[in-house]
Amino acid sequence: MEREHMFVQGEIITIGNELTSGRTLDVNAWYAAGRLTASGLRVTRITSVGDDYPSVSRVLTSAMEASSFVIVTGGLGSTEDDLTNEIVSRTLDRPLCLHKEMLETIKRHAKMQGVEMSSSLEKMAWVPDGSKMLSPEGKACGFSLVENEVRFYFLPGVPEQMRYLIDRMVIPELQSLYGRLPVTMCRTLKVYGVSEPHIAEVFKDLDKRTSKAVLGFYPHFPENHITVSLTAEDARNTARELDRIEKRIREKLGTAVFATGSSSMAEVVGNIFTVKGLTVSVAESCTGGLVGHLLTSVSGSSRYFLGGVVSYSNQVKMELLGVQAGTLEKCGAVSNETAREMAEGVRKRLHSDVGIAVSGIAGPEGGSKEKPVGTVHMALASAEKTIATGYRFWGNRQHIKLNSATMALDWMRRYANGDPLLPGI
Amino acid sequence: MEREHMFVQGEIITIGNELTSGRTLDVNAWYAAGRLTASGLRVTRITSVGDDYPSVSRVLTSAMEASSFVIVTGGLGSTEDDLTNEIVSRTLDRPLCLHKEMLETIKRHAKMQGVEMSSSLEKMAWVPDGSKMLSPEGKACGFSLVENEVRFYFLPGVPEQMRYLIDRMVIPELQSLYGRLPVTMCRTLKVYGVSEPHIAEVFKDLDKRTSKAVLGFYPHFPENHITVSLTAEDARNTARELDRIEKRIREKLGTAVFATGSSSMAEVVGNIFTVKGLTVSVAESCTGGLVGHLLTSVSGSSRYFLGGVVSYSNQVKMELLGVQAGTLEKCGAVSNETAREMAEGVRKRLHSDVGIAVSGIAGPEGGSKEKPVGTVHMALASAEKTIATGYRFWGNRQHIKLNSATMALDWMRRYANGDPLLPGI
Repeated sequence: MEREHMFVQGEIITIGNELTSGRTLDVNAWYAAGRLTASGLRVTRITSVGDDYPSVSRVLTSAMEASSFVIVTGGLGSTEDDLTNEIVSRTLDRPLCLHKEMLETIKRHAKMQGVEMSSSLEKMAWVPDGSKMLSPEGKACGFSLVENEVRFYFLPGVPEQMRYLIDRMVIPELQSLYGRLPVTMCRTLKVYGVSEPHIAEVFKDLDKRTSKAVLGFYPHFPENHITVSLTAEDARNTARELDRIEKRIREKLGTAVFATGSSSMAEVVGNIFTVKGLTVSVAESCTGGLVGHLLTSVSGSSRYFLGGVVSYSNQVKMELLGVQAGTLEKCGAVSNETAREMAEGVRKRLHSDVGIAVSGIAGPEGGSKEKPVGTVHMALASAEKTIATGYRFWGNRQHIKLNSATMALDWMRRYANGDPLLPGI
Repeated sequence: MEREHMFVQGEIITIGNELTSGRTLDVNAWYAAGRLTASGLRVTRITSVGDDYPSVSRVLTSAMEASSFVIVTGGLGSTEDDLTNEIVSRTLDRPLCLHKEMLETIKRHAKMQGVEMSSSLEKMAWVPDGSKMLSPEGKACGFSLVENEVRFYFLPGVPEQMRYLIDRMVIPELQSLYGRLPVTMCRTLKVYGVSEPHIAEVFKDLDKRTSKAVLGFYPHFPENHITVSLTAEDARNTARELDRIEKRIREKLGTAVFATGSSSMAEVVGNIFTVKGLTVSVAESCTGGLVGHLLTSVSGSSRYFLGGVVSYSNQVKMELLGVQAGTLEKCGAVSNETAREMAEGVRKRLHSDVGIAVSGIAGPEGGSKEKPVGTVHMALASAEKTIATGYRFWGNRQHIKLNSATMALDWMRRYANGDPLLPGI
């Protein structure tokens, strides 16, 4: 039990009828628990209750008996069912007071969004006596207070705002309060194009040699993410051990590992294209614009992404990309031949170094025996040559679109790195 | 409080260190809560705790004080950290007994899967005295017991098995125990282009007249979703009352309500364009393909969506869409004038009834004093005329892209319905 004493214990309370009725999945508790654990703190309990006085009051009281800190999310908004401030006020017997700085922040926020100030917005600034505002740069509003030496953090239920405050305010404050916490470091390796059972085999082999590290596996369709967590007293040694494990995983999975940390596939592609000074254009059929959307999700993508043509109809394929009517007739829109002409056409018309084309059947209609739903052909045209191949993806329409678009980005990454493409059908 | 008495109240406890450490998202609690609520039962609390005696014991004891039924998942397996049976035995002071029928089921199961029977598998059949096996057709194993008139259900943490037992055993048993349960119906209204405080004001006014209905508000950027839940004994009257409330909300919010139920904006647009026999093409700059992606997320979108041009660079705007060099020079790429020429260009070149154009500054770079980040100009060209206006959106790059693309779809919807567009800057 000695290890237990290393940890500062806390709990998470999420408030909302949408949680207890099963209408909404509780991603806030999950995020907060993950971030706190990774920061060396321990979460002993997560409780979700509806927006009503008896439930919230009971769980707040019970949390005070057992925890050093309590994270509460939800019920801070401006609508009638946002009752957290009032319930906390009654439970802890602290009257609601108008927090002037918070009111100013809310006003500034409303103005920026072009929203008129109202009494329901003002309500949000009435917080239990003694509360401290949590709001770095006024981007989101929450508050904290200390009762019986227990530190309570009240955060909005909007996931983005909650995450922002957890990362920017709550964790730094807890870490500075409790001093040197055991270091838990976590590294994420992002993988594309390797199946789950294959990764499980890699894990089996790794497990024997990575005694203290905890390996995690998280499918993020169509990617798979592998996490390696390690807790120790010493940051430098922990990092060195993580390096060693990362190296072993990379030896096993090779170029399928496309990123470490938080980088997205589009960011990885963007970096390589920027470094190599290459430009790209895309000709999209079944993805309908998703490849362009992913590429332009990266700030600064205009340096390498020139644009594209979404050729959903055959007429657009012919008129805007120069695909031959004969090719469409003989081979069909979903074929290596059409994909080739699309890639070459978009490259030529947009004057880019590389042209990428995707043409497939996203379903649920349009499949045939020879070309079932999920059949997708891709091509990449460069000054030297054009390559093309087909894949068969699995899943519903959204899965097939996303997998196709990710594969197109993976082609760009592998092309620019000089790595072989993933084998097709 | 009379309303409360209509409901049989219960709670859900999920056990596992993977939950409190944030390694795994708690989909079991979400599923169970949703199914129980839909069956007319009420979940008042969901608690996740780690696999240890003090945490589990404490939450079991607390649940007994407040609930008629308790669903517990996790910790029933064969590994060392599966401790639920033992903890329940100690907490309720009921010795573990070998349940013969359960042992047979486990043996049969092991044989079917080609797994050798072992002492760790046998462990699973040692359950607290007085437990009843839950296992229709031996597909998954759980058990139930009654203590102090509280009905406990212990289910495995494997989502598939848990769901199977919830649907096949737990809910039918609770329904037969508690007789005819009240009907809870929920309706969702989706809204675009109305601010949260404005909706709050509408709610205030509605609340007085909708005594029994529970109104909920859920931001789904850039949309807002309003839910109306109503519980009553009689399904037909409940539906009629929901109709009445929906009508009142629509009176207040007008054309901002774009859908009822689960339809997306793209589906709504697709339906109208299909019914009216219209076709559309898109010219996208800052959205980078997102408008096309959203439109093609709908199966059958090829009936009305012909394709588009992603004109990220000015050269593409000129060469593929016919935007005049002079317009770009004089007014800039982000202007009504350029948007107009883009919309007219894409409509002409793709031979569609309607051409939509979006050109803006998604940031974080590229803003100026006159045209800050978030400035987005749109145009819609039809046979009769071309309309254009600018908006100023708020948020990060992803927000601005998504808001712009949704606004483009909203223009399509409003154009086809003959409704006025949302006012711009």
